[in-house]
Amino acid sequence: MKGKKAVGSRAGAARSQKVWSGRFSEAPSPELEAFTESVSVDKRLFRHDIMGSIAHCRMLARQGILTAREAGRIERALREIERELGLGRLPLAARHEDIHMNIEHLLAEKVGPVAGKLHTARSRNDQVALDMRLFLREELAAIRQALTALMETILERAAGSVDTVLPGYTHLQRAQPVRLAHHLLAYFEMFLRDRQRLDQLAERVAVMPLGAGALAGTGFPIDPRSVASELGFARVFSNSMDAVSDRDFAIETCFVASVLMMHLSRWAEELVLWSSHEFGFVELADAYCTGSSMMPQKKNPDVLELIRGKTARVYGDLMALLALMKALPLTYNRDMQEDKEPLFHAVDTARESVIIFGKVLQTARFREERMRAAVEEGFLDATDAADYLARKGMPFRDAHRAVGKAVALCQKKGIRLQDLSSDEWKKVAGRLGPEVRAMLAASSPADRRSSPGGTSRESVLSQIERARALLDG
Amino acid sequence: MKGKKAVGSRAGAARSQKVWSGRFSEAPSPELEAFTESVSVDKRLFRHDIMGSIAHCRMLARQGILTAREAGRIERALREIERELGLGRLPLAARHEDIHMNIEHLLAEKVGPVAGKLHTARSRNDQVALDMRLFLREELAAIRQALTALMETILERAAGSVDTVLPGYTHLQRAQPVRLAHHLLAYFEMFLRDRQRLDQLAERVAVMPLGAGALAGTGFPIDPRSVASELGFARVFSNSMDAVSDRDFAIETCFVASVLMMHLSRWAEELVLWSSHEFGFVELADAYCTGSSMMPQKKNPDVLELIRGKTARVYGDLMALLALMKALPLTYNRDMQEDKEPLFHAVDTARESVIIFGKVLQTARFREERMRAAVEEGFLDATDAADYLARKGMPFRDAHRAVGKAVALCQKKGIRLQDLSSDEWKKVAGRLGPEVRAMLAASSPADRRSSPGGTSRESVLSQIERARALLDG
Amino acid sequence: MKGKKAVGSRAGAARSQKVWSGRFSEAPSPELEAFTESVSVDKRLFRHDIMGSIAHCRMLARQGILTAREAGRIERALREIERELGLGRLPLAARHEDIHMNIEHLLAEKVGPVAGKLHTARSRNDQVALDMRLFLREELAAIRQALTALMETILERAAGSVDTVLPGYTHLQRAQPVRLAHHLLAYFEMFLRDRQRLDQLAERVAVMPLGAGALAGTGFPIDPRSVASELGFARVFSNSMDAVSDRDFAIETCFVASVLMMHLSRWAEELVLWSSHEFGFVELADAYCTGSSMMPQKKNPDVLELIRGKTARVYGDLMALLALMKALPLTYNRDMQEDKEPLFHAVDTARESVIIFGKVLQTARFREERMRAAVEEGFLDATDAADYLARKGMPFRDAHRAVGKAVALCQKKGIRLQDLSSDEWKKVAGRLGPEVRAMLAASSPADRRSSPGGTSRESVLSQIERARALLDG
Amino acid sequence: MKGKKAVGSRAGAARSQKVWSGRFSEAPSPELEAFTESVSVDKRLFRHDIMGSIAHCRMLARQGILTAREAGRIERALREIERELGLGRLPLAARHEDIHMNIEHLLAEKVGPVAGKLHTARSRNDQVALDMRLFLREELAAIRQALTALMETILERAAGSVDTVLPGYTHLQRAQPVRLAHHLLAYFEMFLRDRQRLDQLAERVAVMPLGAGALAGTGFPIDPRSVASELGFARVFSNSMDAVSDRDFAIETCFVASVLMMHLSRWAEELVLWSSHEFGFVELADAYCTGSSMMPQKKNPDVLELIRGKTARVYGDLMALLALMKALPLTYNRDMQEDKEPLFHAVDTARESVIIFGKVLQTARFREERMRAAVEEGFLDATDAADYLARKGMPFRDAHRAVGKAVALCQKKGIRLQDLSSDEWKKVAGRLGPEVRAMLAASSPADRRSSPGGTSRESVLSQIERARALLDG
Repeated sequence: MKGKKAVGSRAGAARSQKVWSGRFSEAPSPELEAFTESVSVDKRLFRHDIMGSIAHCRMLARQGILTAREAGRIERALREIERELGLGRLPLAARHEDIHMNIEHLLAEKVGPVAGKLHTARSRNDQVALDMRLFLREELAAIRQALTALMETILERAAGSVDTVLPGYTHLQRAQPVRLAHHLLAYFEMFLRDRQRLDQLAERVAVMPLGAGALAGTGFPIDPRSVASELGFARVFSNSMDAVSDRDFAIETCFVASVLMMHLSRWAEELVLWSSHEFGFVELADAYCTGSSMMPQKKNPDVLELIRGKTARVYGDLMALLALMKALPLTYNRDMQEDKEPLFHAVDTARESVIIFGKVLQTARFREERMRAAVEEGFLDATDAADYLARKGMPFRDAHRAVGKAVALCQKKGIRLQDLSSDEWKKVAGRLGPEVRAMLAASSPADRRSSPGGTSRESVLSQIERARALLDG
Repeated sequence: MKGKKAVGSRAGAARSQKVWSGRFSEAPSPELEAFTESVSVDKRLFRHDIMGSIAHCRMLARQGILTAREAGRIERALREIERELGLGRLPLAARHEDIHMNIEHLLAEKVGPVAGKLHTARSRNDQVALDMRLFLREELAAIRQALTALMETILERAAGSVDTVLPGYTHLQRAQPVRLAHHLLAYFEMFLRDRQRLDQLAERVAVMPLGAGALAGTGFPIDPRSVASELGFARVFSNSMDAVSDRDFAIETCFVASVLMMHLSRWAEELVLWSSHEFGFVELADAYCTGSSMMPQKKNPDVLELIRGKTARVYGDLMALLALMKALPLTYNRDMQEDKEPLFHAVDTARESVIIFGKVLQTARFREERMRAAVEEGFLDATDAADYLARKGMPFRDAHRAVGKAVALCQKKGIRLQDLSSDEWKKVAGRLGPEVRAMLAASSPADRRSSPGGTSRESVLSQIERARALLDG
Repeated sequence: MKGKKAVGSRAGAARSQKVWSGRFSEAPSPELEAFTESVSVDKRLFRHDIMGSIAHCRMLARQGILTAREAGRIERALREIERELGLGRLPLAARHEDIHMNIEHLLAEKVGPVAGKLHTARSRNDQVALDMRLFLREELAAIRQALTALMETILERAAGSVDTVLPGYTHLQRAQPVRLAHHLLAYFEMFLRDRQRLDQLAERVAVMPLGAGALAGTGFPIDPRSVASELGFARVFSNSMDAVSDRDFAIETCFVASVLMMHLSRWAEELVLWSSHEFGFVELADAYCTGSSMMPQKKNPDVLELIRGKTARVYGDLMALLALMKALPLTYNRDMQEDKEPLFHAVDTARESVIIFGKVLQTARFREERMRAAVEEGFLDATDAADYLARKGMPFRDAHRAVGKAVALCQKKGIRLQDLSSDEWKKVAGRLGPEVRAMLAASSPADRRSSPGGTSRESVLSQIERARALLDG
Repeated sequence: MKGKKAVGSRAGAARSQKVWSGRFSEAPSPELEAFTESVSVDKRLFRHDIMGSIAHCRMLARQGILTAREAGRIERALREIERELGLGRLPLAARHEDIHMNIEHLLAEKVGPVAGKLHTARSRNDQVALDMRLFLREELAAIRQALTALMETILERAAGSVDTVLPGYTHLQRAQPVRLAHHLLAYFEMFLRDRQRLDQLAERVAVMPLGAGALAGTGFPIDPRSVASELGFARVFSNSMDAVSDRDFAIETCFVASVLMMHLSRWAEELVLWSSHEFGFVELADAYCTGSSMMPQKKNPDVLELIRGKTARVYGDLMALLALMKALPLTYNRDMQEDKEPLFHAVDTARESVIIFGKVLQTARFREERMRAAVEEGFLDATDAADYLARKGMPFRDAHRAVGKAVALCQKKGIRLQDLSSDEWKKVAGRLGPEVRAMLAASSPADRRSSPGGTSRESVLSQIERARALLDG
């Protein structure tokens, strides 16, 4: 139960010869094996490794490097291995270092020496690069799908909350009233940018690196383009040294996940606040909360807190990968093996967090009455008063000062702006004062902000329309 | 000479009333002013602030919110202020908080109360967002230009080094021979990705936020689209709450700069190695090196070391901005003021580093004779030997083992692979051994890797051609 | 107004020969000078540089390496330079690279060639290390002093709030009532740890590195111990290679500052919450708040938000320094020049943040009536009820469940736990139920937690006593 | 094989009631359980959890809160559970959230309702804090032990390499000759500081938090001091709110591990360089190297590269924890659950890296002849020549310039400094020139640096003596 997970059993296993043992006069130490193995982590790539190997194998056959018969045997055996690994029926051993060598070893057990031919015109360096890109393509698509579902949920909740008004905040101080739908749609915008970043990243991921060899290409008459097309990749690498030492795509994944998590974390923070007794703007579903083992009255927004916490972890993943690559000379260096855990963690966390956040949002009950009550307190119409004076010709700064004084007066008296008398308004704002009083009484504050992208009913409805079109299009 | 730079002189300055002082009964403390002021940092945005204000002013006039006369006076005064600030002739004071309030204050001194009208339908929140986007547009363009120049230099040096062969490395161990041009072009690929990221980011930057107001839009009949078009921005914000609280663009800038710096740092590391006595692959120009104040024989690659060091700093900028935004509820929070120094530092560092790296590369002398000599040692043709055996039908893993033994034998005897006798080859590789011997003698190792993106002459020439087309296109 | 601050005027300045120009055949390029200069940053160390030089100079005289007359002239001139630099009267030039070479240059202008002798048995490498350590000693002491003052303020406020009770929170949900003094003292504990870390760091800083030379020591008959004792350093370096390439002390400073800032940031977050309309637990002094340029009613806790934001920046400093040093071979590498800005920023930010936080705390008005009212809502006595049942023999888990049901019942009826009837208590908790009712009525919930370190009056008073003793001792 | 490890089988498991389900009307969703469970990670703490529970149980009995019989039954059952968990015989289930609830559940299965009494006067909040501190105490001790063993190895290797001279480097340029022992001892110094930091941290870890309850202490008549003494902790917490929300100790662990890893990473970088063909200063043991699956000649220093890479990961751990805690209000928030994986990773990585580094160092063969040869090239005696001239009265800066010219002359002629004729020396250094020539011939350059901490034989021997005393004392 400590540290690295055991992979396969070493007990009684005859120490197998390494594939690279030719020039070595001493066997690897057990500590070396334990320290350098990666199969306990990269076993997760087994499907991608086999998918890449089959594409490579077929190409070798098409190019006449393998016979059709050899290729057929290899492919059938690889499919068997995939199935059996999926069922957990095959042993993976740390002494075979990584998932790639483990699969090669399993292949050799099934088909004998011909297994060795699969490695023709391929190195672990380009093989690893391919597996990671196949893996990421899948994961990015899964995150995108989850994100789109979350955006759909936002739209649904926004459609149902166009007429709910709550205080908008700056500095966590009540500032101006906003529609709840408007507030929700702010997050839609963030996720829209995240989705665009995901899409642009996915294109940079879809570059086929096989054929780069260890670093310099190969002398075999390979056809990388056909491998790319079999795997559904739009592009083939242009420079073999770059192909095997590039990890931009892994770092960028951690970055895109970091910003996405940051958005979730901001919203989580907000919902934690809103579900506090003090705000009381939202009631999360029991099914997405937990209680306290000590305090019987507690209902805690744990999911949201964990999302904040997990955001910090994804930041750590990004920082790790950036520091990792900082000053590595070309081409492959073993440091790069450490890219996998942060990458896996980042994509898992992003996907899982987006999914559960969607559930929390879907099942949350917004307490509209509390929101509405909150709008009444805090002088949220003060800007409107100042704007009105400005519109009537008073320099804005003077208008601001006048209303500031009105607010101070209200605070002293414990009343709202609309409760000030005409005389009091006159005292702070001169001749125009009484008009302010009338204006405040006449219309709803949220609807006064009718500029494009603003919080008026019309403006919010048009935002929803645009968002709907973007999601559907 | 300590801490924050003094901004303007406070001596004898009558404590001016804050624009927001209406509801306050106590004056701000001097410590508050010193701690919260940002003009010592954001003064750098003065041109962008004025550019944005002029566009806003014109729109207000077009919409009839200002008279043409008022707008004319304001615009002329803003242009004067821009000129005088550029010449360093106007005082900026910490008591006016930031560059925006300072300029407004200067404007009021020039045109009197009408200055206050410029603030109509605008808040500092959307104003700051606009200034940062205008600033970034400029800076991203400057980095892109510098990067393109560096890529041009790479192409020039690559064109001149197609026939220079040096060892390619993995794990900093000699691996296979590569053409110097091939090696240089690996960096071209990295910068190509950086340029694409810059371009995609630039589009996300070019969104016009003015009109979002403090957070909820405005009731004035503004026309944000015309402001955008005057400023050359393709898009207008869609949601006012997002518009004022979004800092994705600043974080993404730090990220794009981080990856770009990481690429420079990898190359810098490599050139530091290459200019060591031990490698001796490059001689940097005296003009781009420094000496030691103590050791008369030293010539140090300081520029390259600093680039590595500055990379770490840009990472710090990125981490700061991510942590900054982590759990901020909507909308603007003052934490966000701290985004500027990291952002400024990141763009300055990226631009300056790219430019000077280009000079270093341009003036470096590659020591081809040393490279060539290095290719001779280290068994760089071992893969070829194994590949050859594989091509002749030996499973690759067996071929690998056979050549591994040949290498071990050579090491014992202190000779090269091509110096082994036919008998010795036979001993390690069986019947095919002697053929290997002949093959190794017959052709150049670099040219055997003729696959696409590989290091053969033809393949490298075609890489250069593609790169040229990309740069010119 | 862009990028790096100009340092001195280069206009018309004859390009001076570098001190290390002997073996160079080409002059340094202007870009090199601009990119590598550090005097715009490290000029801040001028006092420490001169302090170290004087100590070195005296030692050279004591050891007979300089004559008393030479040493006297040098020391007098250095003191003059210090005075004049302090007054801003001497030019510092980027072409002299850093503050050390600038001062040497100024010295040469004053005393002629004998200035060169000061550099005997010293390299810039050990000189820089010394200056940084002298600087840090001062800064750490200043932070410690500010921190102690803040802890004093906490104690004062705690003494005045022993009888103020507010909800304690977990998951931002009301949990159990706590005394305000108890809450404040939690931060006292954090700062106590910070202070201990500062003290332990200060000891690691106080190691005298002069005499390490460039890396290997010196052949001159120096006496480092006497230099250390003149400078008030307890220890002398043990290994010259470590002495010039160690930056642990700078990284650790950023770490200690990061944790300190994290504590401030937690408290700042809390006070931002408390000063929201919704919590309303605190009213910050007008003098430490700012308003909005648009919204007349706003009063914003900017200082606290900035402290949260600045925390992120200090994290960035730490990350930068760690990444910087990650894989640097011995000994000095120019990357290390980039350590200064993060270090300066971290110590300035920590000191300034602690000081202003103290002011904010001192002048804040805690709204006891709001706190007290909040304690009444939220079932903060639920744990007590469960504890009581447990004390009477019910397994705690069962007691927890029973009270959970009581809470659910109260929520449905909109009443408090103490409002449940005996019958209702019996229904949820059996025979012991009615006793719970009596217990809840009988005593104050905060005082029931009388365990050591708990929130009862007695326990809090004894915490204050201990804290007072620690501060005074 | 994807994402989170399965913990226990959920198939067919009746959904058990949560311990906190009293006030909940809806069962937790399966996604909630999967997202919030931590037992897949914190199961590693089972021994520490049981150790803490037993100490708590005994105290409850001593205080009369449990009967001796109850306590006896609980303790015996806990010991059984510990044994069975150690053998992997007991199921742990995600539906019981964490290791603490799982053990409580197992306990209830063994002893029935009395199990619930163990939770008296304890909350998961203080329980978690205790478990982590118990865990860390163990781990810090293990790292310290490994580090001491590594320092022992350094001393052994230093003792055997006092008379091996190699170039010392600055900027990766040959600078001055140093003894290999001197070089090795530089790392001894770094680890000495690491060990001191570990020790000081261990004291901050050894604070007993049980009795803090959920946040505010407890009303039960507990005796935390006796629990501390039973567990071997020197101190008890002082403030309950701090006790449950403090994670400084976890962050500081990641920091101490980061600096330790940074030191290893610097040395790893150096040994990677040294084992390159170009440097050739070291031959690593075959048992601690790996080969290439493609290139038969390769022998790669993978362990060292991985250590560099793992350093980046530990940095990520630190950054994650700092970001995690940044703005959390008191007291416990669920974000803090995410502290475990980074913490576990940091301590495992540090311990394993130190251990294997020791093996690599122990088995490496330093190639003294290559080092010696390198000292001959690169003008490593240039500083000595300048020092000599300075000692004879020439201002150091002039001496530096003269020798710089001598170096330039030698480079042109392809000779060493000691090969210059007296006339040539006269030309560059005037009257004193010929004396320099004699001096260079007369003594060994390394021994000229005889200052304390320098590289002369005597100085190095005294460093070894001091180091030995420190290790033994």
